[in-house]
Amino acid sequence: MGRVTDLVTFGETMLRLSPPRGERLETTRNLEVQTGGAESNVAAGAARLDVNAVWLSKLPDSPLGRRIVSELRSHGVRTGIAWADPAGSRTGTYYIEHGGDPRGTNVVYDRSDSAFTTIEASELPEGIFENTTTFHTTGITPALSEAAERTTVDLLEAAGEAGVTRTFDLNYRGKLWSPAEARKTYESLFEHVDTLFVPRRDAIEILECEGDAVDIAHGLLTDHDLETVVLTRGEKGALAVSDGSVHEQGTFEADTHDAIGTGDAFVAGFLTRRIDGGAVPDALQWGAATAALKRTIGGDIAVISREEVESVLEGESGIDR
Amino acid sequence: MGRVTDLVTFGETMLRLSPPRGERLETTRNLEVQTGGAESNVAAGAARLDVNAVWLSKLPDSPLGRRIVSELRSHGVRTGIAWADPAGSRTGTYYIEHGGDPRGTNVVYDRSDSAFTTIEASELPEGIFENTTTFHTTGITPALSEAAERTTVDLLEAAGEAGVTRTFDLNYRGKLWSPAEARKTYESLFEHVDTLFVPRRDAIEILECEGDAVDIAHGLLTDHDLETVVLTRGEKGALAVSDGSVHEQGTFEADTHDAIGTGDAFVAGFLTRRIDGGAVPDALQWGAATAALKRTIGGDIAVISREEVESVLEGESGIDR
Amino acid sequence: MGRVTDLVTFGETMLRLSPPRGERLETTRNLEVQTGGAESNVAAGAARLDVNAVWLSKLPDSPLGRRIVSELRSHGVRTGIAWADPAGSRTGTYYIEHGGDPRGTNVVYDRSDSAFTTIEASELPEGIFENTTTFHTTGITPALSEAAERTTVDLLEAAGEAGVTRTFDLNYRGKLWSPAEARKTYESLFEHVDTLFVPRRDAIEILECEGDAVDIAHGLLTDHDLETVVLTRGEKGALAVSDGSVHEQGTFEADTHDAIGTGDAFVAGFLTRRIDGGAVPDALQWGAATAALKRTIGGDIAVISREEVESVLEGESGIDR
Amino acid sequence: MGRVTDLVTFGETMLRLSPPRGERLETTRNLEVQTGGAESNVAAGAARLDVNAVWLSKLPDSPLGRRIVSELRSHGVRTGIAWADPAGSRTGTYYIEHGGDPRGTNVVYDRSDSAFTTIEASELPEGIFENTTTFHTTGITPALSEAAERTTVDLLEAAGEAGVTRTFDLNYRGKLWSPAEARKTYESLFEHVDTLFVPRRDAIEILECEGDAVDIAHGLLTDHDLETVVLTRGEKGALAVSDGSVHEQGTFEADTHDAIGTGDAFVAGFLTRRIDGGAVPDALQWGAATAALKRTIGGDIAVISREEVESVLEGESGIDR
Amino acid sequence: MGRVTDLVTFGETMLRLSPPRGERLETTRNLEVQTGGAESNVAAGAARLDVNAVWLSKLPDSPLGRRIVSELRSHGVRTGIAWADPAGSRTGTYYIEHGGDPRGTNVVYDRSDSAFTTIEASELPEGIFENTTTFHTTGITPALSEAAERTTVDLLEAAGEAGVTRTFDLNYRGKLWSPAEARKTYESLFEHVDTLFVPRRDAIEILECEGDAVDIAHGLLTDHDLETVVLTRGEKGALAVSDGSVHEQGTFEADTHDAIGTGDAFVAGFLTRRIDGGAVPDALQWGAATAALKRTIGGDIAVISREEVESVLEGESGIDR
Amino acid sequence: MGRVTDLVTFGETMLRLSPPRGERLETTRNLEVQTGGAESNVAAGAARLDVNAVWLSKLPDSPLGRRIVSELRSHGVRTGIAWADPAGSRTGTYYIEHGGDPRGTNVVYDRSDSAFTTIEASELPEGIFENTTTFHTTGITPALSEAAERTTVDLLEAAGEAGVTRTFDLNYRGKLWSPAEARKTYESLFEHVDTLFVPRRDAIEILECEGDAVDIAHGLLTDHDLETVVLTRGEKGALAVSDGSVHEQGTFEADTHDAIGTGDAFVAGFLTRRIDGGAVPDALQWGAATAALKRTIGGDIAVISREEVESVLEGESGIDR
Repeated sequence: MGRVTDLVTFGETMLRLSPPRGERLETTRNLEVQTGGAESNVAAGAARLDVNAVWLSKLPDSPLGRRIVSELRSHGVRTGIAWADPAGSRTGTYYIEHGGDPRGTNVVYDRSDSAFTTIEASELPEGIFENTTTFHTTGITPALSEAAERTTVDLLEAAGEAGVTRTFDLNYRGKLWSPAEARKTYESLFEHVDTLFVPRRDAIEILECEGDAVDIAHGLLTDHDLETVVLTRGEKGALAVSDGSVHEQGTFEADTHDAIGTGDAFVAGFLTRRIDGGAVPDALQWGAATAALKRTIGGDIAVISREEVESVLEGESGIDR
Repeated sequence: MGRVTDLVTFGETMLRLSPPRGERLETTRNLEVQTGGAESNVAAGAARLDVNAVWLSKLPDSPLGRRIVSELRSHGVRTGIAWADPAGSRTGTYYIEHGGDPRGTNVVYDRSDSAFTTIEASELPEGIFENTTTFHTTGITPALSEAAERTTVDLLEAAGEAGVTRTFDLNYRGKLWSPAEARKTYESLFEHVDTLFVPRRDAIEILECEGDAVDIAHGLLTDHDLETVVLTRGEKGALAVSDGSVHEQGTFEADTHDAIGTGDAFVAGFLTRRIDGGAVPDALQWGAATAALKRTIGGDIAVISREEVESVLEGESGIDR
Repeated sequence: MGRVTDLVTFGETMLRLSPPRGERLETTRNLEVQTGGAESNVAAGAARLDVNAVWLSKLPDSPLGRRIVSELRSHGVRTGIAWADPAGSRTGTYYIEHGGDPRGTNVVYDRSDSAFTTIEASELPEGIFENTTTFHTTGITPALSEAAERTTVDLLEAAGEAGVTRTFDLNYRGKLWSPAEARKTYESLFEHVDTLFVPRRDAIEILECEGDAVDIAHGLLTDHDLETVVLTRGEKGALAVSDGSVHEQGTFEADTHDAIGTGDAFVAGFLTRRIDGGAVPDALQWGAATAALKRTIGGDIAVISREEVESVLEGESGIDR
Repeated sequence: MGRVTDLVTFGETMLRLSPPRGERLETTRNLEVQTGGAESNVAAGAARLDVNAVWLSKLPDSPLGRRIVSELRSHGVRTGIAWADPAGSRTGTYYIEHGGDPRGTNVVYDRSDSAFTTIEASELPEGIFENTTTFHTTGITPALSEAAERTTVDLLEAAGEAGVTRTFDLNYRGKLWSPAEARKTYESLFEHVDTLFVPRRDAIEILECEGDAVDIAHGLLTDHDLETVVLTRGEKGALAVSDGSVHEQGTFEADTHDAIGTGDAFVAGFLTRRIDGGAVPDALQWGAATAALKRTIGGDIAVISREEVESVLEGESGIDR
Repeated sequence: MGRVTDLVTFGETMLRLSPPRGERLETTRNLEVQTGGAESNVAAGAARLDVNAVWLSKLPDSPLGRRIVSELRSHGVRTGIAWADPAGSRTGTYYIEHGGDPRGTNVVYDRSDSAFTTIEASELPEGIFENTTTFHTTGITPALSEAAERTTVDLLEAAGEAGVTRTFDLNYRGKLWSPAEARKTYESLFEHVDTLFVPRRDAIEILECEGDAVDIAHGLLTDHDLETVVLTRGEKGALAVSDGSVHEQGTFEADTHDAIGTGDAFVAGFLTRRIDGGAVPDALQWGAATAALKRTIGGDIAVISREEVESVLEGESGIDR
Repeated sequence: MGRVTDLVTFGETMLRLSPPRGERLETTRNLEVQTGGAESNVAAGAARLDVNAVWLSKLPDSPLGRRIVSELRSHGVRTGIAWADPAGSRTGTYYIEHGGDPRGTNVVYDRSDSAFTTIEASELPEGIFENTTTFHTTGITPALSEAAERTTVDLLEAAGEAGVTRTFDLNYRGKLWSPAEARKTYESLFEHVDTLFVPRRDAIEILECEGDAVDIAHGLLTDHDLETVVLTRGEKGALAVSDGSVHEQGTFEADTHDAIGTGDAFVAGFLTRRIDGGAVPDALQWGAATAALKRTIGGDIAVISREEVESVLEGESGIDR
């Protein structure tokens, strides 16, 4: 881990099992196997855009745990893994059943007591923040266990001490904890955060913000002494407050094949451009383009290239032959 | 068959063979195998909504015949089957090729001379209408053979004598008989029916009804001394006349993955709610919600749960995680 | 049909539907679709070995019927089809479930009342035996219906009048008729046959032959005034009596992927070599090699090339790179 | 549950996820979904042989839990389930990777803290042993949790009080507990058992029996006051001691597609024949035939029919057409 | 090749390899295999509409080359192939990755140095234009190599001498050559062409036409002394100038499953109707209907029937049962 | 590339496309996509056994080229790639059709003019042999083009100068060059080689060695001043001559799912153990065990773990649960 690292992310990654379209978990005979986790999705998306990315986590040293590392490596992500004894640990798993209106997409988590829930900062490689530009994690991680919350704090602090930019995606998950618990933890973490990504709805419902989008973003920025707040608003696009300016960014129209991971793709595109040296409005554009491309692709990860992002930004489309 | 049964249905169920999307029967190398039959679709849909349902039929005692029973059992349906000698009988089969506009969905029947066409009421289990609430069959059954028509009449009469509510879905199939033949048979059956489901188009084209929807439903009700007439009108939703009142119900928007079985799902939802003790407007709502959910799922059967119907009625949607 | 034709075959071809290995018809969700019929298997196998082959049959003018023609055309077979109105006719179908010992391979026929059962010689193209070398059919065809038997006789007679060599594979099917019925029909057909292929077991059990293999073959030859009798004996290989000589041929060892169609492949190889001008021992070798290759390939048809047959005859094997 | 029940079984059933042949868990993109559990395998195998079977268990009321019930129902098994709140419970899962020599088949369990581990006898339906002939469970169940062990004892006692024959398959699983722990529990359970199935190797290694097969079986019978002991010896077949007699039974040769569930199929066949009224030697034959058929079929369950068992016992084989 | 041929086409056909929807070439584990080439697409589409069609090409005598011929034969196309020694030649291949907006569909060609690039007219069967009505080729063919361009000219000249109508689809491919090179070649070929199909965009960008659609079509007609010019305008439909008249044709709405091959389907429908004896407006209708049907079907080829085209023209739709 | 590297390999890697078992390239609709190349197979196999491995090659910067790198990365291999402009270069491809006796496995190469054939040593990363233990390449590489041969020599020389152990696997491919050409090149390369792997058959047929296995190995060792010669003899196992001693190693019995890559797996196991510090006999054991495990797995690469190799060496087998 001695070379320059653009981006370190930290969080749990799960096996993702999904039946074919139009089939149900109750009746399917086949599950497609992929992997997914908010933080590794960001690392993989960024690595595909040529960012030098590292992902930190804890996994059982089993075929299932190793498979997650293999898939991330295939996207060019380097990994720093605390390997758990497979006899007494399990790999977090989630089942996803895609469904159109009015059925909706259904996620069934089977992640409790996973190896990750026992993680300690001391198990991770040393010196991970040397020569590192950015550290990213999300609000899912501290929801997983006390140990995971403690490690989140430890890493944010260590990153801060090493002068690394710390970015945080709120990612509230109602299946993991209550709004009140979540809010308390989030607010204690914000002092270690530089850039916050937060959906407008969660800002209102979980963080109890009020006012219009600019009010909310500005309020979070000043209340928690953040450098940048990016408020995402679904189809309405994103809005960032940074350095006293407000920047708005619409979405690119997309034929959605799989919406899971869209938010992570947005963060991957945004951080890639920031690491490239781009300003916030430029990064918002990259985030929006990466998110739109992700929607056309199955799985959690934005399996795309820089050329494709640039092509979206230039408005190209159609069949190229 | 000694316990309370909410719903008994009667009719033929076929193997359903379909190529992958975008492929044609003439060229495909793979067929997905499912089962489908209007009356067992209703039984299975209702059973999934916790109705105690029984399906009566005749099948060859072959792997293909037994497969149909296995699939229905998996949905919780109890079965009362007249098993035919496999040497001299066959399982009805249908091929379905899904196609978008302007190609349309194509159904190829291979059901002639199936075991079901030789059914006699005496072959079915005794006492099937003891402790039974509702008996349902459709206008497909009497079209299949003289024996099937005779058995339909026998069962409707027996149900009537046992004080069971008899419901009937017109389900006109132009590939099985002419409008004139169908009309004559339908009208002779109506005297044994309490609730009639009929598409508006068939009411006009086959039953030669005239006037607006209310006129049609009201006319059928009074002409045939029915308790309830439910007129379905595709995207316009359904209209019921019952007890001197008219009730209208719109449709719920749905991303259609497979439209086959939508009508049966409507009946399953409607009957479930009636058996629960719901009034006609409530039952219409359940019918509409069940039908919308069905459209998102491959196969003939509404593989859904009570919670999902309730969730549609409460207007929930989106990804739940 | 004005050009030279090496081989005309006549018989029914069915859809062949089979579940994946290790799965059962009662539980599978997927069926592989192929086509199979003893006589078209011979035509296709021979066409792949560069024989100019034509297959005569009757099929519904439906996607299922046309699919059978498409598949045979893809192997280079020309077809002479009596097309039946799809409204009142069906395509013969068979289900095959491969199973190892002690379960065995299970074939479920669904072929009764197929379009083929109504065939008349007058429906087939005219002049089919002009410039034709060989006519081949099997003992399955007359078992299917009276019309099919009558047409078999008509075609054998017409071929004889046109000076075409007539070959016949006994192919007894216990699911279609009794040994006594079969025997009676077979023996009435033999007067129109030049070359007979018959499994030793059927010669004994159906034709009631006695003695060792040579006795049986010789007895059939003299009793029915045949030119050549080829007796097949499973793993023991084949034995031919012709022109007063006895020729024996062993089998080539094969890793069996799918045994169905092995006998037809043998006939295809044998006839190909005879049509090439080869003598009986040479033809037996080609039959054995073609049969061995077939066993390695899924489906009814020997999808192989002349080079592969020659390579087996030369004893080559292993990975060629 | 008021009617006559031939067989009640009790134990955990898991989702079974397996990659295609030749693929590894670390790299596969597809998992086949089935269900498996020693006791439900016995119930399903027996139900397919026309035994009236009930399976008792505990599962989350989730799509994954309901799927297990659906699959068992499809085989004709009735179920008595304690449904757990899906929010706080999980479905046991196991991954199986089939491999030939020298790799071997690999099973990865992910079953800890499943809903089943919290089962109490009081959660199961009342009166389950009324009108019941046989109760079957295995040595896996008490290894799962203290609650599961307690419930095993409670049910064995209740069955004994109701005069039900109690059968027990040792099924030692080294991944669940140590030999010493297992032995102690097994020996405390044997007082509630009438018929014991035990592999010779486990008798020696876990139960510390000594001597030849007859000595072992006889020793267990007398030490624990059992009625019947069936010792299984892999390819060498089974040996039973009962009523002072020793009975031996060889195996039927089988082309093994999937060996998992072979032991459960043996028990299903054995118990079926005992319930039919067959003597021990007859039951051993049925066990051996059922086990051999199972090996040819993918999944845990012997998806076979009475006719197929009889056909093996009569020595039939080959392609039937 | 002695009988009447309605349509001869000439050009390269490639293997077409495509990942499942939502998957990427960089990560997919499965590729669907089909075949595609503009000129064989036209031949196959027309053959399915009962045109007697022949396709001329050059391919390696390898499994990959023979597969292309097999697939075309299955659609009823007769083939005239110059077979190349497989040792020193390759089969053109293309990869297609379907993607929704904003990703677009991506085509990766791997066709350089294919066997076709060495084609000479002398390698093709003799007398191919005897008794032939129409000869069709496209602007892809001369872009492939000098030999291919020379052969294109040779065949157009030979067709002209034989009094065969020559039709030409511009089909500009930016991945094969520059606009300037293309224009020069196109314009030298036009003197041998009777009917030209050209997309409006290519007319402007490659042929440097100016003005509105009528101006462009008319200009091309008079500049190059063509009989008919058909200008295609995507969703706006087509416009033809012929015999001093202008004919416009809209598009039929279609649910697009696979847009590749739509233009070739249009040509197939148009030429079929012209060969039938239909006038230009009638042919435009057939072209539009065939194109719309093609969009609903996977692969390059319009796997449809005359009945389906007629059904579109009559405005029928919906599920027929 | 500044850290310690155990193993550097160099050579071309291709897309590997294979139809399902029992299907043929001429008729299959699906191809499984993997990647394969002798030298990257060794790197991946060794990396899975915890060797720090780097693979050097040249590929087009296209989805197909990048896919190869992704797959190798997923196994933990680091890559040093000369990326070629995708517009003018192609990815080598090979098709493999698995077949049992007597058909054999068929490999169809489509690798001519691939990007790799233009490789120059100067395009590869600098300093690749710093801190490196072993360099491995094979006799396929110099057969691909003059540039590839020149680069092979350049790298072997550079490795020699850096004091890196150079290992070479003869890997004669008759589809690439003649025995005479191959022999001349091989013999010129041997002066740069320390360890040679060679099949006995190729030693005799290509290198024209004579005598028994020991004579051959010893002769090669002394003629070319090699340190170690490993002679592989198929089912007879391997024999090594090194340091004046002769070591023999048998094979482990294996159920072969896919034999391709067995030789590369042997080399991977052998080199891994040598790099671990093991002596030649120990390395031969690891080679044999790795090769046996490979045979059970689909694809070119030995997707196995150290534990599995150790388990084979300890003679464990069976189902572990």
